Amino acid sequence: MPRMYRESQFPLDEEHLSRQETLFHNANGYLGVRGTLEEGTCYKSMRGMYINGFHDIVPMKQAEKLCGLVEDKEAMLNAADTQTIMLRVDGELFSLFSGEVEDVERTLDMDEGITERDVTWRSPGGKRIRLVFRRMASFARPHIFVQECEITPLNFSGRLGIESWQKALVNNYADADDPRLGADAVCRLTPAGQAMAGDISLLSAQTLRTGLTVCTAVAHDLIASGAERWTYDEVAHSAVWRAEIPLSEGQTVRLIKYTAMTDSIRSAVPAEDALAELRAVRGRLPELRQAQRDYLARFWDRADLEILGCEADDTAMRFNMYQLLQSAGRDRYGAVAAKGLSGEGYEGHYFWDTEMYMFPFYLLTSPDIARSLLLYRYGILPAARENARRLGHRRGALYPWRTIAGRECSGYFPSGTAQYHISGDIAYAVTQYWLGTGDETFMREYGAEILLETARLWLDTGHWHGGRFMIHDVTGPDEYTCLVNNNYYTNACAQYNLRWAVRTAERLKTWDGYGAWAARLRVTDGELAEMIAAADGMYLPFDEALGINPQDDAFLQKPVWNLAETPRENFPLLLHYHPLHLYRYQVCKQADTVLAYYAFEGIATPEVMRRSYEYYERITTHDSSLSTCIFSIVASRLGMRKKAEHYFGDSLRADLADTHHNTRDGIHTANMGGNYMAAVNGFAGFRLSPDGLSMDPFLPARWSGFRFRFIWQDRRFEFEITSEFCVLTLLQGEPATVRIRGKEHRFRLPGDKVTVPMDGEDEHST
Amino acid sequence: MPRMYRESQFPLDEEHLSRQETLFHNANGYLGVRGTLEEGTCYKSMRGMYINGFHDIVPMKQAEKLCGLVEDKEAMLNAADTQTIMLRVDGELFSLFSGEVEDVERTLDMDEGITERDVTWRSPGGKRIRLVFRRMASFARPHIFVQECEITPLNFSGRLGIESWQKALVNNYADADDPRLGADAVCRLTPAGQAMAGDISLLSAQTLRTGLTVCTAVAHDLIASGAERWTYDEVAHSAVWRAEIPLSEGQTVRLIKYTAMTDSIRSAVPAEDALAELRAVRGRLPELRQAQRDYLARFWDRADLEILGCEADDTAMRFNMYQLLQSAGRDRYGAVAAKGLSGEGYEGHYFWDTEMYMFPFYLLTSPDIARSLLLYRYGILPAARENARRLGHRRGALYPWRTIAGRECSGYFPSGTAQYHISGDIAYAVTQYWLGTGDETFMREYGAEILLETARLWLDTGHWHGGRFMIHDVTGPDEYTCLVNNNYYTNACAQYNLRWAVRTAERLKTWDGYGAWAARLRVTDGELAEMIAAADGMYLPFDEALGINPQDDAFLQKPVWNLAETPRENFPLLLHYHPLHLYRYQVCKQADTVLAYYAFEGIATPEVMRRSYEYYERITTHDSSLSTCIFSIVASRLGMRKKAEHYFGDSLRADLADTHHNTRDGIHTANMGGNYMAAVNGFAGFRLSPDGLSMDPFLPARWSGFRFRFIWQDRRFEFEITSEFCVLTLLQGEPATVRIRGKEHRFRLPGDKVTVPMDGEDEHST
Repeated sequence: MPRMYRESQFPLDEEHLSRQETLFHNANGYLGVRGTLEEGTCYKSMRGMYINGFHDIVPMKQAEKLCGLVEDKEAMLNAADTQTIMLRVDGELFSLFSGEVEDVERTLDMDEGITERDVTWRSPGGKRIRLVFRRMASFARPHIFVQECEITPLNFSGRLGIESWQKALVNNYADADDPRLGADAVCRLTPAGQAMAGDISLLSAQTLRTGLTVCTAVAHDLIASGAERWTYDEVAHSAVWRAEIPLSEGQTVRLIKYTAMTDSIRSAVPAEDALAELRAVRGRLPELRQAQRDYLARFWDRADLEILGCEADDTAMRFNMYQLLQSAGRDRYGAVAAKGLSGEGYEGHYFWDTEMYMFPFYLLTSPDIARSLLLYRYGILPAARENARRLGHRRGALYPWRTIAGRECSGYFPSGTAQYHISGDIAYAVTQYWLGTGDETFMREYGAEILLETARLWLDTGHWHGGRFMIHDVTGPDEYTCLVNNNYYTNACAQYNLRWAVRTAERLKTWDGYGAWAARLRVTDGELAEMIAAADGMYLPFDEALGINPQDDAFLQKPVWNLAETPRENFPLLLHYHPLHLYRYQVCKQADTVLAYYAFEGIATPEVMRRSYEYYERITTHDSSLSTCIFSIVASRLGMRKKAEHYFGDSLRADLADTHHNTRDGIHTANMGGNYMAAVNGFAGFRLSPDGLSMDPFLPARWSGFRFRFIWQDRRFEFEITSEFCVLTLLQGEPATVRIRGKEHRFRLPGDKVTVPMDGEDEHST
Repeated sequence: MPRMYRESQFPLDEEHLSRQETLFHNANGYLGVRGTLEEGTCYKSMRGMYINGFHDIVPMKQAEKLCGLVEDKEAMLNAADTQTIMLRVDGELFSLFSGEVEDVERTLDMDEGITERDVTWRSPGGKRIRLVFRRMASFARPHIFVQECEITPLNFSGRLGIESWQKALVNNYADADDPRLGADAVCRLTPAGQAMAGDISLLSAQTLRTGLTVCTAVAHDLIASGAERWTYDEVAHSAVWRAEIPLSEGQTVRLIKYTAMTDSIRSAVPAEDALAELRAVRGRLPELRQAQRDYLARFWDRADLEILGCEADDTAMRFNMYQLLQSAGRDRYGAVAAKGLSGEGYEGHYFWDTEMYMFPFYLLTSPDIARSLLLYRYGILPAARENARRLGHRRGALYPWRTIAGRECSGYFPSGTAQYHISGDIAYAVTQYWLGTGDETFMREYGAEILLETARLWLDTGHWHGGRFMIHDVTGPDEYTCLVNNNYYTNACAQYNLRWAVRTAERLKTWDGYGAWAARLRVTDGELAEMIAAADGMYLPFDEALGINPQDDAFLQKPVWNLAETPRENFPLLLHYHPLHLYRYQVCKQADTVLAYYAFEGIATPEVMRRSYEYYERITTHDSSLSTCIFSIVASRLGMRKKAEHYFGDSLRADLADTHHNTRDGIHTANMGGNYMAAVNGFAGFRLSPDGLSMDPFLPARWSGFRFRFIWQDRRFEFEITSEFCVLTLLQGEPATVRIRGKEHRFRLPGDKVTVPMDGEDEHST
């Protein structure tokens, strides 16, 4: 069955159409283009084309100046607009908002790697035409974006006027009232060159403050005969390609518009490279389509997760995986933004969720992308060191809470910069990468240094008190409580970070490069011993009376927020209550202590975890899209299968169903990664540990089965779960031992298959 | 001996001159004029004329939007410039920065109520003249500001050209790099009328957003014959008065420039009123000067604090008292800004220090001003209720941390709005006012309502935990630790507030208006009982091991900041360390727990207070000018006299010696109030309590004696302390009993005097 997602474009209202701009965006990790309408809209659309990591620095004035507060931020720029194509049939302009739209449908084909919009339209004058728009962001040639447009007159012959735009000076979308979007619609681009190379138009623009250049090259292939011409508007720094051609009833006219985008971050000569990229593909759309098909076939072959017995879940899961594939940077200049390359929510910033919610997906399905994401973090390590100095630390690296090129872009530090756990999260991903790949070269060159510098941060942040190592005045993942002492998750994260920094440094001692490495980073055995002591002495709050882990030292002293009596319209709470009010209650935006149980298995006994889980469940609003997936996984692990399924259901279709009411601003990449984790790390019980790989699956009641493929330490596997059996197959690679349902199984040759019976119902909870 | 402060104007550099702009400003509680130079400067001067409470609303964009954050603030406006007078002798323009200044001196005469600048100048062409400028902000006619200028040619006869300006469109001073000043130099005034009424020029201007009007009327009396004319520049909305007169060697020419300022806050017809005010005084400078003298004679007669044996201290104390008299608003539209009416530091905002650091001075010396300050707070009670709602409180009033007309103007709430103690501080001042005046009418009409509404805030902010009433997530006076649980000072303040709210409501029950009052405010006995329970159950942290009161629940768990190894240039710490760094250490900007010991006597045993004092003393930087005075008072009370004197010495001359390096931005009114308190509440051991008035004096070693007059419950007293005796005299009023050195003394008739011997050295500390 083809992997496909399809929707009607009806109703033609702003809410629906702007949501579709996100859902049907095209991206390939390098560039992303919103699924806006070629012909334009009659509402304020977020008409964006983005390049991963392409940003300017914009002012972020503080209402009150305090020492060390950041007053500038990086913002992903809308980099160009080459999407616009206006069509005129016998003088009547095509628009969804005039005449009559008889039929309209949008499709994302996840095998072909294209989106399609199929419209049957009757003009105000009664002319019926069918229009098919296809768009592709090429995975094989990441600088290339292609639009196809097929025009078929259904009840007339006449003339078609085409006006196709290439704009260089574009603004970002702005909404002064939404905290999750930029507030100022200032054009941050200035003209930086215009040229024609034959019938290819080239426009370059430069950012105001970072001085980065973006270049677009555009060419058109029209499969029809007609007058064509380019004009250039110097004032608007825009080029327009126009054609005027005859239309015959029933005959399809086809236009192909190629865009190549390049930037000066990755290219010394972006205009030349854009031209070369364009020339390499122009006129070769079939080959480009084939390359796209091949790329995706390889992806699904190694990564597919198929859900049996529930088509909606199956489609949603594939949709999410496809979006993650589209969103991830493939080089050290770009990572995965909170909204991927699909929109401007959170200004294109990269957060901690890349490592904690998406990394597991990439690690298991595309280890090269996982590696690239860590290389990005290695690349901004100097900025993270500088950030630590700004905060007064004498050693270590504090990764910025939100950033593009390394600068801290968080304007309100109590729920931004103070989330020190991001450094531990990145260290955690490095560790997972090591467990998942065994890539010792990476660890020597990059990974160990990240572990060391983040571990140092904890030594400099924490202090000893009463024989325990404590970390004060940080904020955990739950932003409804800020600047707390001994946040359980943060302390657990720091402990893990410290232990793995030392473990890795110790392992590196057998490497002949160790001396130079240690000398460069001034590592001493004394410092490693200090780390071990801090990890061993780490204070992890535990409340004797309740038998649970408090989220922080003072959390349980606060009154419990009355969620039952909070009006529905007051959620999410962060949009309706002053932060200081939220801070005073036991109420959680998202998994915090429960996240620690997921990430640091064995950190508490099952009884404590279960009691804590039930405690936090009652006071968690899941106002963040990062929450229910974690509640699902931990429920899976604690054997609370109904809860696991319940939370999974809430989360899987967050963007498709727009459950957070802001899909228009972009997809929720972390939530998508979280769904994958809920299935793989949750239902399938997949775990990576120093002892190797293990699986402990159960089958959700709503499914008849599920299977997924993954990569572990250069081996490819398929794991299938049905109600009666689970079957692990080694598809490719060296012999390996895997623990399934608590028992070790040996795989010697590709094709080796282990079938383990499922034990039916063993639900411990409601 | 006349009360006078005198300084040379040398050196003529920016640092010295801009400091003098502050020290020699003229104000009367309604208007304030910086001591800028009539003829202008060659540096960027803060050339301000202010009206108490006259403000505009200006944008205060938040770097990151969060629900309920304020995005506008009130800012005191520079309201006009009528100071400028340019003098030209035979074509040579007088300036301190050209030719040669042979002699220059500035004087503040605190009996006459004028400032004077006496300059002997030699022009570049060799002409010597003596110039005497006098300025007065009339206490008797608060809308009036008068400048006199006497010009005497010393070695020539010639011609004098005078150009005197009246500007309506003025900017505030801006410094984008200093957190304590506004960052934007935008003119917030637009023209709102111009007229001539005879030879009086009238200019009106209106604020951009609040729509307030300010009007100045200006007239000149020239005691010489010459051509005079007014011109008006429409573009600059400025008027210039010009005169050209002959000068004869040795003959003094005299110019008097009258300004009347009015505003639409207090006047329905500000232009008419300005004209009327001006006409009422014009040509009557001697009467105006006499009224000024009379006003001050009455002030010193009821309020003087004289220090014997140390002229520097004596002058500094009088200087401070005079500044407090100049700074305080006399109506419900203006209070006492952090910088009074002397400069734009802190944007003219009123803070908690009015109540905690200045109110005692006004209460003892000018109870009518004290009452007016509380009426101002009563006036913004509706805004304080609204502020509480913004913060999510269902009942009570949260006074804004910084404001002019009631709007919260704090941009960073963790060290602003979160200082809930301001509500308790205002309630405290209401209580002090009651103890000091017995003004039951005030309590019925205003005071009780403030007490009730602030007390309600604590009920809504705090919660019960483990049988104790706790207040979480507030910030105490010490801004180096923010968003803490159970700040000792705040909890003590809340307890006092709750108790007095109930005590007052209970007392009002005998009043026949009680029913209506209680009905209007929906007071029930149940709520009063709730308040009593909260006060009785109030948790006041105590550390058993150290035997001290921790500043908050977690304070003592933090590492101690190493003050000894902190470089001198890194003070004040707030300008050199990120707040999050400061929050992680035991380090205090100012008195916090120690402030509670001052305000709430008997809240801890002397042993606990002494240990706490010594503990906090080691970790307090006194980076705030509100700190040392409190350390001095509490040292006095604990019998640590040397410390009391030490901290007093540091604090008394803060502005005269510019110890905080920002006197140029305005005087430190709270520090000035604090000095007075250190002498009266500290050295003299003055206390108000429900049991009455008591004194427990000692004489600082550096003084041979001191005496002060004060008002208590409509009685006037003088208290004199020498090394051998202290003498309390009832100057006026009904019979009274006062406790001196622990023993009650009865005063029956005015003139009654009690002399108590001093017990010499009983110093307990080093």
